[in-house]
Amino acid sequence: MLEKVDLNRKMEKKEYKKRMDELQPKLSRLQRDCKEKKIPILIVFEGLGAAGKGTLINGLIEPLDPRGFQVYTTAVETKEEKMKPFLWRFWTRIPSAGRIAIFDRSWYRRVLVDRFDGLTSPEQLDYAFGEIASFEKQLTDDGAVIIKFFGHISKHEQHKRFEKLRSEKKTAWRVTKADLERNKQYDKYLHMNEEMLEKTDFEYAPWHILECTDRQYAIAKMTEIVVSALEQALAEREHIPAEENGEEKAERQELATSVLAGVDLSKTMDKETYRKELAHLQKRLGELHNELYKYRIPVVLAFEGWDAGGKGGAIKRLTQALDPRGYAVHPVSSPTEEEKMHQYLWRFWKNFPKDGHVAIFDRSWYGRVMVERIEGFCTTEEWKRAYHEINEMEEQLAMHGTIVIKFWMHIDKDEQERRFKERQENPEKQWKITDEDWRNRAKWDEYVTAVDEMLLRTSTTYAPWVIVEADSKYYARIKVLKTVVEAIEARLER
Amino acid sequence: MLEKVDLNRKMEKKEYKKRMDELQPKLSRLQRDCKEKKIPILIVFEGLGAAGKGTLINGLIEPLDPRGFQVYTTAVETKEEKMKPFLWRFWTRIPSAGRIAIFDRSWYRRVLVDRFDGLTSPEQLDYAFGEIASFEKQLTDDGAVIIKFFGHISKHEQHKRFEKLRSEKKTAWRVTKADLERNKQYDKYLHMNEEMLEKTDFEYAPWHILECTDRQYAIAKMTEIVVSALEQALAEREHIPAEENGEEKAERQELATSVLAGVDLSKTMDKETYRKELAHLQKRLGELHNELYKYRIPVVLAFEGWDAGGKGGAIKRLTQALDPRGYAVHPVSSPTEEEKMHQYLWRFWKNFPKDGHVAIFDRSWYGRVMVERIEGFCTTEEWKRAYHEINEMEEQLAMHGTIVIKFWMHIDKDEQERRFKERQENPEKQWKITDEDWRNRAKWDEYVTAVDEMLLRTSTTYAPWVIVEADSKYYARIKVLKTVVEAIEARLER
Repeated sequence: MLEKVDLNRKMEKKEYKKRMDELQPKLSRLQRDCKEKKIPILIVFEGLGAAGKGTLINGLIEPLDPRGFQVYTTAVETKEEKMKPFLWRFWTRIPSAGRIAIFDRSWYRRVLVDRFDGLTSPEQLDYAFGEIASFEKQLTDDGAVIIKFFGHISKHEQHKRFEKLRSEKKTAWRVTKADLERNKQYDKYLHMNEEMLEKTDFEYAPWHILECTDRQYAIAKMTEIVVSALEQALAEREHIPAEENGEEKAERQELATSVLAGVDLSKTMDKETYRKELAHLQKRLGELHNELYKYRIPVVLAFEGWDAGGKGGAIKRLTQALDPRGYAVHPVSSPTEEEKMHQYLWRFWKNFPKDGHVAIFDRSWYGRVMVERIEGFCTTEEWKRAYHEINEMEEQLAMHGTIVIKFWMHIDKDEQERRFKERQENPEKQWKITDEDWRNRAKWDEYVTAVDEMLLRTSTTYAPWVIVEADSKYYARIKVLKTVVEAIEARLER
Repeated sequence: MLEKVDLNRKMEKKEYKKRMDELQPKLSRLQRDCKEKKIPILIVFEGLGAAGKGTLINGLIEPLDPRGFQVYTTAVETKEEKMKPFLWRFWTRIPSAGRIAIFDRSWYRRVLVDRFDGLTSPEQLDYAFGEIASFEKQLTDDGAVIIKFFGHISKHEQHKRFEKLRSEKKTAWRVTKADLERNKQYDKYLHMNEEMLEKTDFEYAPWHILECTDRQYAIAKMTEIVVSALEQALAEREHIPAEENGEEKAERQELATSVLAGVDLSKTMDKETYRKELAHLQKRLGELHNELYKYRIPVVLAFEGWDAGGKGGAIKRLTQALDPRGYAVHPVSSPTEEEKMHQYLWRFWKNFPKDGHVAIFDRSWYGRVMVERIEGFCTTEEWKRAYHEINEMEEQLAMHGTIVIKFWMHIDKDEQERRFKERQENPEKQWKITDEDWRNRAKWDEYVTAVDEMLLRTSTTYAPWVIVEADSKYYARIKVLKTVVEAIEARLER
């Protein structure tokens, strides 16, 4: 892509002014239209050193309403960022619906400058490409527009620009030794850039090369691309059928196997055994929590299950054993307005633990393929896509070194009724039961279908589902504790 | 407070168990009641080294629902935190309505361990006490409950505990040289602790000394105090009259002077002068932005004014001159659900700039004393209190080194009508005008009263209001730019 480019392209001032006078008011209006249609926009600037990313960004934002965009500069990871999965800092910065996020260097760092600087190992490289593809796909699937620019100049032009910067006291600091070295080995680095462009030139998020020898040419071309990308996004938005959801909702998918049907709910435990095991496992978990901290291993535990399945009780037995400074419990209920304005996984990314910490989710991102699916809060296409999206997210956590375990607290329908009634009759427990619980119960069979599919499609080696037979609370709590203890021990042995 | 304490207090195991069996279920229910009544709760643990804060916190959370609290450990500031006002990291962590935040060391660090370690200068000390008082007052005025514990042990007991920790390999690292030194100079440090307790033992957020020689005694006493504080908070909540707002709203406060009445709106500027000045000031501002970055000076600009007063246009002329990587524009509209669950200033604290950056607010925290006052979105008591709260917040920004300027974009009623009509007639501008604008216009006189009072009560030397005569857009934009340029220049000269 880079070698065939004609770097001598230029634009005269008069022509430039004419083009920009047409394009800028258009862009200005497009920004408003995209805001109204709630389209999130990401614009990425990568490219060769001294190609002029700063100038491009300034040219881009000139006609934009400053209240609607934010520019992010991506430098080497800070200490805090290193303690989270690599994409964490980008997930937390994705624009909300209708806003524009502009990235001066981006999630491509790892496969570009970090690679050049030897910060990305060859093993990490392939994996990084995969993460990038998944990140961009998840966002565009959610309706975001991603526009990627690569600023290109010749070896000679780059050398000239470096020298000019170096000749002035005010700007000399901007040219590093690495820059000069990269200019010397221009061809080698160009090859790596080329490789990156080829591997990540997706239909859903294509690259645009900007010939940056002449800045006016580059700015005009960039503006034109942004205008046409936004026009296209708006046009596509027009053609989406209003609600293709209704009909499909009725379609019941029959799975070949049912995981839930095979669960043996007769498992039980007597009180004395429970007490002994509990004391033993909690003590052990307390010790292991220190080890986690020492070796900076993060842990993510997600609890799902039937209402009254005993999530709260199990979580409590875990947290009793943990140092309160090293864990957080995140109760997950319906998303807030702000959360609704972002891709649905955004609110979980925000809460992923830093290295050495434990995050416990009471309900989780699996709401997408259960309640949202069943209640029609998202389209069929959206929840079907979610299995893969969730697997990718969990894989990223695991690759970062996180222990990820998901618990399904399973009880049968009679046991649920017994527990609901007990809650209603006991004044101390009434707060635990709401009308919604009864409404959900009426949809038991729909949930069975959804849960079965979820368990099949998202049980992975790196983030397994553990089905907890929970008709006996004692048995269930011990199984949860034991699972966590064993998973940590297994990790520490590695 | 500390010297008279009887540190020999003990509690037998049997008595302890009995008391806790009574208290813990109570606390458990109180947590739910406070959640329902949306009371935010902050519990602070400070005290002498080895007094056992960790044990106390573990004792406290045992009966609590882990989904409803979060424990924060406060260490020395991180690099990022140092680039924000000191209280930033606590403001961003205040609990939302109904949640409990537990602090293992807290905003008292600066007047305790940081002071002991020589990180707090004597000049900073007095100021820090003032900030603490204001922080706690603002939160409790908003309905939060703050419970502060100070763990106390004798010199001899502390020495014994340090030695015990040092004797075991696993725990030896927890005792630092500074700890041992502080034990040697126990009396001197006790005196400083005493001073801190006296200065910050507020009626709205009192200290409770816990005699920590015997851990059971300490845990039982602590639990009792938390139970009674929450019971009291709930009882007080019952006695708040439902709506004392209605009658008072009619009360019109006559101010002796009207700032707005004295504004000369005939000021104007011709196009040619405007162009020249604009080019000159933008160039200068661009240079100054680099200096701000170099000297790590943060800037906060708040724009308020009549609808159609030209806020957007003025902001745009500013941002055109700024490096997009060094500023952010924050449009402020009505608060989200999540924001409503916090004290009203929380959402602004989150967006204050780090050192060297510029934050521009398009509408601001002054909504509290304008639209919220006029529309009755808060009580009279709340908006009256807000003047002082806002002054305190801006003072904290200024003390941190932030340049704070507030602009009131002022036009007369006829000019507003002209602009509204122009917007309605011009298809390119129709999006700028809504029914709400007309509704607000109908309340012009009420706004005049509110704005006059606001300008009088919140114009300070450290955060001045600048009234911009904005009937002429050219004049107004230049005045804004000039004000910002001059403020930065003045700061750089210091």
